[in-house]
Amino acid sequence: MLQVEHIGIAVKNLQESDNLFSKLLNISPYKHEEVESEFVMTSFFKIGTTKIELLEATNENSAIAKFIEKKGEGIHHIAYEVSDILAEMQRLKNEGFILLQETPKLGADNKLVCFLHPKSTNGVLIELCQERQ
Amino acid sequence: MLQVEHIGIAVKNLQESDNLFSKLLNISPYKHEEVESEFVMTSFFKIGTTKIELLEATNENSAIAKFIEKKGEGIHHIAYEVSDILAEMQRLKNEGFILLQETPKLGADNKLVCFLHPKSTNGVLIELCQERQ
Repeated sequence: MLQVEHIGIAVKNLQESDNLFSKLLNISPYKHEEVESEFVMTSFFKIGTTKIELLEATNENSAIAKFIEKKGEGIHHIAYEVSDILAEMQRLKNEGFILLQETPKLGADNKLVCFLHPKSTNGVLIELCQERQ
Repeated sequence: MLQVEHIGIAVKNLQESDNLFSKLLNISPYKHEEVESEFVMTSFFKIGTTKIELLEATNENSAIAKFIEKKGEGIHHIAYEVSDILAEMQRLKNEGFILLQETPKLGADNKLVCFLHPKSTNGVLIELCQERQ
């Protein structure tokens, strides 16, 4: 694991939260991107070497809609950048962590991603991500 | 704001979570520190330029104990490193954010810190921190 690539935050209204986080971080989002397969619209802020990803559900089947219904708005996941996602998935599987994907899937921001089940990680939803070649 | 200094994670049992996060991150914690004023024992992992801070309550009056009772174990706060905490507190107050301290207090890891109320920040507990001189 190389670094915290981003922190994902579940929000109800991306436009309102864009304004809020622009004031908070004193910077503007550098891009918006829809991830259709995940039913989310995202917004990215860069701070130091890490990003903040705001996530708004685009329909009620989105994991983000379910998260907000259960826990309210707030921090949703931590994403770690890895240099070799397949090797890291195998290492974590061997250590007893529960992977939510058997193979990496396509995430936002040109990344291959895999999530770990929070019940195996102290309630913290962890994403592994690797830049696509 | 310079960077994400650390991500705080509320845990029930620091020793068990130390083991878990050592496996997850493939590194060992580099220090443990008690913050008596906050009723917490902490453990720090370094990953890239960011730290993961595990927090265990040392008594039931700790904010961490109350957080776990309400939401379960999981991500508790995001801490941003700032170069001038007093100026940043004033800027955020002017922007309408609610500060939980009127003046910075002493936190773990030799830092001056100030928290923002999550109801003004989309449910995300935000810590500002500055290295003590």
